[in-house]
Amino acid sequence: MSTLSEEEKEKYLNELFEFLKLPSISADSRYKDSMIKTAKWLSNELIKSGCDSSKVYETDGHPIVYGEKFVDGSFPTILVYGHYDVQPPDPIELWTTPPFEPVIKNTNIHPDGAIFARGACDDKGQVFMHVKAFEQLIKKDKLNCNVKFMIEGEEEVGSENLEKFLLENKSKLNADVILISDTGLSNLKKPTFTIGLRGLSYMEIKITGPNRDLHSGLYGGALANPINILSDMISSLIDEEGKITIPGFYDNVLEIDQSKRESVEEMSKFDNDDFKNSIGLKETKGEKGYSTLERLSIRPTLDVNGIWGGYTGEGSKTVIPSEASAKISMRLVPNQNWEKISELFTNHIKKITPNSVSIDVTTHHGGNPYITPEDFKGYDSAIKAYKDSFGIDPIPQKDGGSIPIVPMFESILGTKTVLMGFGLDSDAIHSPDENYGVKNFFIGIDTIQNFYKHFGN
Amino acid sequence: MSTLSEEEKEKYLNELFEFLKLPSISADSRYKDSMIKTAKWLSNELIKSGCDSSKVYETDGHPIVYGEKFVDGSFPTILVYGHYDVQPPDPIELWTTPPFEPVIKNTNIHPDGAIFARGACDDKGQVFMHVKAFEQLIKKDKLNCNVKFMIEGEEEVGSENLEKFLLENKSKLNADVILISDTGLSNLKKPTFTIGLRGLSYMEIKITGPNRDLHSGLYGGALANPINILSDMISSLIDEEGKITIPGFYDNVLEIDQSKRESVEEMSKFDNDDFKNSIGLKETKGEKGYSTLERLSIRPTLDVNGIWGGYTGEGSKTVIPSEASAKISMRLVPNQNWEKISELFTNHIKKITPNSVSIDVTTHHGGNPYITPEDFKGYDSAIKAYKDSFGIDPIPQKDGGSIPIVPMFESILGTKTVLMGFGLDSDAIHSPDENYGVKNFFIGIDTIQNFYKHFGN
Repeated sequence: MSTLSEEEKEKYLNELFEFLKLPSISADSRYKDSMIKTAKWLSNELIKSGCDSSKVYETDGHPIVYGEKFVDGSFPTILVYGHYDVQPPDPIELWTTPPFEPVIKNTNIHPDGAIFARGACDDKGQVFMHVKAFEQLIKKDKLNCNVKFMIEGEEEVGSENLEKFLLENKSKLNADVILISDTGLSNLKKPTFTIGLRGLSYMEIKITGPNRDLHSGLYGGALANPINILSDMISSLIDEEGKITIPGFYDNVLEIDQSKRESVEEMSKFDNDDFKNSIGLKETKGEKGYSTLERLSIRPTLDVNGIWGGYTGEGSKTVIPSEASAKISMRLVPNQNWEKISELFTNHIKKITPNSVSIDVTTHHGGNPYITPEDFKGYDSAIKAYKDSFGIDPIPQKDGGSIPIVPMFESILGTKTVLMGFGLDSDAIHSPDENYGVKNFFIGIDTIQNFYKHFGN
Repeated sequence: MSTLSEEEKEKYLNELFEFLKLPSISADSRYKDSMIKTAKWLSNELIKSGCDSSKVYETDGHPIVYGEKFVDGSFPTILVYGHYDVQPPDPIELWTTPPFEPVIKNTNIHPDGAIFARGACDDKGQVFMHVKAFEQLIKKDKLNCNVKFMIEGEEEVGSENLEKFLLENKSKLNADVILISDTGLSNLKKPTFTIGLRGLSYMEIKITGPNRDLHSGLYGGALANPINILSDMISSLIDEEGKITIPGFYDNVLEIDQSKRESVEEMSKFDNDDFKNSIGLKETKGEKGYSTLERLSIRPTLDVNGIWGGYTGEGSKTVIPSEASAKISMRLVPNQNWEKISELFTNHIKKITPNSVSIDVTTHHGGNPYITPEDFKGYDSAIKAYKDSFGIDPIPQKDGGSIPIVPMFESILGTKTVLMGFGLDSDAIHSPDENYGVKNFFIGIDTIQNFYKHFGN
């Protein structure tokens, strides 16, 4: 089905493998040099694919790769955003093949092969589709848009230095649409098209009790154990109906009217049993009064992403630890504001901390929720592009994940974003054995070209 | 005040340092060879101090060191029990000096010096007092008891292979009293004497949710997060009055009558402010209706000793983990039975586990509570020995810690135990910077000799 030749397919996969072999783990400071190497490699690829110029911009964190191709002042401009950094591969022992040694394997879901590697889908594989779609358009002399690439290295750690870059390069980044492939679709037969993203507030709390680890026999029973207190506090954050108990948390949540909710439910054909089976669960769980699809899209959440305290090694140790910590994140929906939510969380946590311990609350990062407006040419061009490639109208759908910089683009650059993602739920992004369908990779390259065709028309 | 000469003091400390330098961490399988080396070193010391024979007994785990000295068939026999294994030193970065490089430092609590090392007090330092007291008695030709030493290497991991050793060597281990120094006293001016120990049930639970780690954006809100569930379950185990909610948990707890409680409180002169200050807390916390001293001695407890799940590294990772685990231990009092309590815990945990996750419950180890009877010659000899050494009657007191094998000794060997411990609360056993007062070490050697004097009389 792909418009690529067999030679092109092989070449593009080999090039992607080079990209995937570079361990660009932004969260781990030991990979700083590897991040720089990856940025330079990508910048060079942009030139090879046809950019007039490309540059690796230093930041206070990991560098940003920029490249551009000017064709004609009368053409619209597309700004492609993506990220070359990846999540840490832990737990690394659960990978079937090493995370930075890409390999193609056939699976039930991908009988024609899937690329297994950290970043295969999120987001190196999807970024690389844009580079190759752009290369194709030049090769076929069909490039009817000016193009700018901005590929950052800190998406997985909160894009901390991107705002400054946007503010300092506003005119350089001027565009008519921002195009991003960092999301997924339902399947290749009846694809969904992401029209909304949840926001995120990522927090960390640390409880401190006694001034040192204590023997649980000599001291147990007479003081607050930081782990028990942390458990109490976490447990109190969600009530029996699945509602988050932080005062004011739901104040600005946009309630969707019943008829709209029903039509989305009808159109999506979301299968609850498929969902449970895909992750090996007997039962789903969430906010009362909402379907699984709604819990994943139009409703905010709170999840503990990590917890630790005391002795966690082999065997047993009879200790009452001095400290216990947890990483807790909340997914937000329109019109919640992540900074406001982080503040509400912080104040609430401090308020419910008993006097028997002390508390530190840290905000890691966050971002606001986003919606692509229906009356925007980018929206329409995307719908047409999907139809060209897949032969069917895509189903517009709100996505549960967050790309915190999307609403930031709008506020700083004044530019709307179109989210054209080609991953599947089964891609195991952020998990061991992350993978990306070979077919998804190639159909992405086609669909992006079709988007240019309609948007530049 | 010590009866030792300056030369003897220096020699004994140097020998103890050799013992402390051996990293005998029973919980960590990487130290298996080090455990064997420590056992052999100790066995050799027993011979050097005057034992007729000594042997290192292999077990399915770490070896047991045995040694004996027969003097006269008409003399009573003392069986000395102790352990040469130590707790893991983590968190190792919080040690001021390395855990296995013993050094003497003066502190506010020990202006005459304290030995800083893992095991300085628990239990190598205290075991070594017995070896040197025995050596002194032989040297002075005052040994009026037959002596047997049984020093094991698995106390910190539940003494799993000791029961078999006791059963297989019942006649060899026949004795009139078991003497153990593995507890503490209040201070050197008005010492307490431990007449009771709490029991222990040490459990581990593992919650499993989805079949892999999931992206918290794409999945958050629609399924039970194992960490949140674990927190809910832990939180539910203790109610607002500090009572443990496991059905049947308190059924066999011995209630002490009010007049006895008041007299213990009066005699102990326990200072709640000193307690809080010593561990840096603003507030104590525990079971309603009981004093801090009672919460530490006559009441059972439940503490989380370790918790882990999800991403616990640097930065942030937006993951819903597949698993979350906790180590949870309960301290027991007469007449609770640890096997019964472990069973009640297991059943209750399984019962409160929601269908949205699955659960594994493991029993690590345990032991029953113990009381030394007042009408026993060992009890009386201990009181007199303290008075000889300290110049004052000791205060009999129940201790919060557990030595699970003490009740086992009674049931298998039919022998009562006397607990003569010389550690202080500030010794930081099981914590970084474990230390043991040099004075405590020397007065222990004297008091043990005085115990022999009265018991063999």
